[in-house]
Amino acid sequence: MIQTRAQVTVRYAETDMMGIVYHGNYLPWFEVARTQLLKEQGFPYRQLETDGYRIPVLEVGARFLRPALYDDLLIVVATIREKPLLRIRIDYEVFREGELLATGHSAHAFCDKTGQPTRPPAAFVAKMKEAFK
Amino acid sequence: MIQTRAQVTVRYAETDMMGIVYHGNYLPWFEVARTQLLKEQGFPYRQLETDGYRIPVLEVGARFLRPALYDDLLIVVATIREKPLLRIRIDYEVFREGELLATGHSAHAFCDKTGQPTRPPAAFVAKMKEAFK
Amino acid sequence: MIQTRAQVTVRYAETDMMGIVYHGNYLPWFEVARTQLLKEQGFPYRQLETDGYRIPVLEVGARFLRPALYDDLLIVVATIREKPLLRIRIDYEVFREGELLATGHSAHAFCDKTGQPTRPPAAFVAKMKEAFK
Amino acid sequence: MIQTRAQVTVRYAETDMMGIVYHGNYLPWFEVARTQLLKEQGFPYRQLETDGYRIPVLEVGARFLRPALYDDLLIVVATIREKPLLRIRIDYEVFREGELLATGHSAHAFCDKTGQPTRPPAAFVAKMKEAFK
Repeated sequence: MIQTRAQVTVRYAETDMMGIVYHGNYLPWFEVARTQLLKEQGFPYRQLETDGYRIPVLEVGARFLRPALYDDLLIVVATIREKPLLRIRIDYEVFREGELLATGHSAHAFCDKTGQPTRPPAAFVAKMKEAFK
Repeated sequence: MIQTRAQVTVRYAETDMMGIVYHGNYLPWFEVARTQLLKEQGFPYRQLETDGYRIPVLEVGARFLRPALYDDLLIVVATIREKPLLRIRIDYEVFREGELLATGHSAHAFCDKTGQPTRPPAAFVAKMKEAFK
Repeated sequence: MIQTRAQVTVRYAETDMMGIVYHGNYLPWFEVARTQLLKEQGFPYRQLETDGYRIPVLEVGARFLRPALYDDLLIVVATIREKPLLRIRIDYEVFREGELLATGHSAHAFCDKTGQPTRPPAAFVAKMKEAFK
Repeated sequence: MIQTRAQVTVRYAETDMMGIVYHGNYLPWFEVARTQLLKEQGFPYRQLETDGYRIPVLEVGARFLRPALYDDLLIVVATIREKPLLRIRIDYEVFREGELLATGHSAHAFCDKTGQPTRPPAAFVAKMKEAFK
């Protein structure tokens, strides 16, 4: 299992007229945690793009249990539970002081610059092999 | 079945450095189609809020098949396939010139101003009864 | 003078917890009108980018007179008042049923792919010469 | 002079197809710094809203000198240079490792829940008097 905990503070821009965070604004938070997870594993996404890789989002989902509010300090936990093969699945949980506000997941595949599926870098494959042995 | 077809033109703001639309920006498009669907059924969401109702998003999901690009003219089809009971489920399909780019769904429940689940307005229940008889 | 009138319907995603449109969300509307203006003049921005040009925003400003609300149908007027030389200045006015809600402006320069200032395409220069003679 | 330095890391969602941050996305960063500045002065905006105040944006402006990129760690400096009377003016500077990327400003006024201009809370007036004596 690979996991990271990212911090996010809710921006006013992320709220809507219901007085809570607009549901679509959780997706960039998932991305913040994903960016941190890849960086901690030694694969900053910015470097991956420079090296010619893209990891587009193939699928995303989220469930909203309790509303997040302006200026809340949130923890976004991102977890890879299974060894990524062709697909990388990441699960997310959003907490405020230990209270679970939302869950989600995303699925990704390594692509080249033209958007065609491609093999992940060898170092990434090796790292995942080690993490999930 | 209740269905509507909303038009959206992709904004530059909605693209990301991959050169395509950022996945999170499909969710506001689903919302555009949802707004139109409710309005066509006689229940403008703005009026519903004035009347004290909220219809928060409980769950959302999307699959991305082909990228949408800046200035693309898209059709977002929103469909209610089953008579809504406690939950309203809406399905979405995003097309560009007949080509399916993405699918998605959202689930909602009628709530009062405080966020507590409540019965939909009687007129809404009657309308759904008629539509799905 | 070159002018266009673009239509925008306010999305729920564009509101904030003050119950009105978040001020930052006017900027994509300015961009919608700008896109339409360039297209009407025969220079779709998407084509300009394909041809190797970029027209980044150098400066932007806005004044907010009255709030825009969810589901409002707005008219965004974009105007080039002076013949663009090195800089292109565009002014914006946002109306709801004839009522002025906001004004703004943006300044742009033609650049190449690397972000270096460059001459506009000859056809653009000719078109502006004709429009402002 | 009242000043704060807020940290922002650029999200992928904030970039556009030009490969840099979309200009409109600097405005939420200004807001992040503004939120921090008010909090440090003892007036968390969330509390101000609870107390019945609103501080809408009357005017905003920004100049973009150098592009910000995905995953950049930025410092957003927010400064109140003059004692706020009816209007509060805040200036912003966005830095990446000491390099100035953008400048901006916003103007605000205290309003009540209905959007009518009102006097700031007495404690705020006292605090500003002290800061700018």
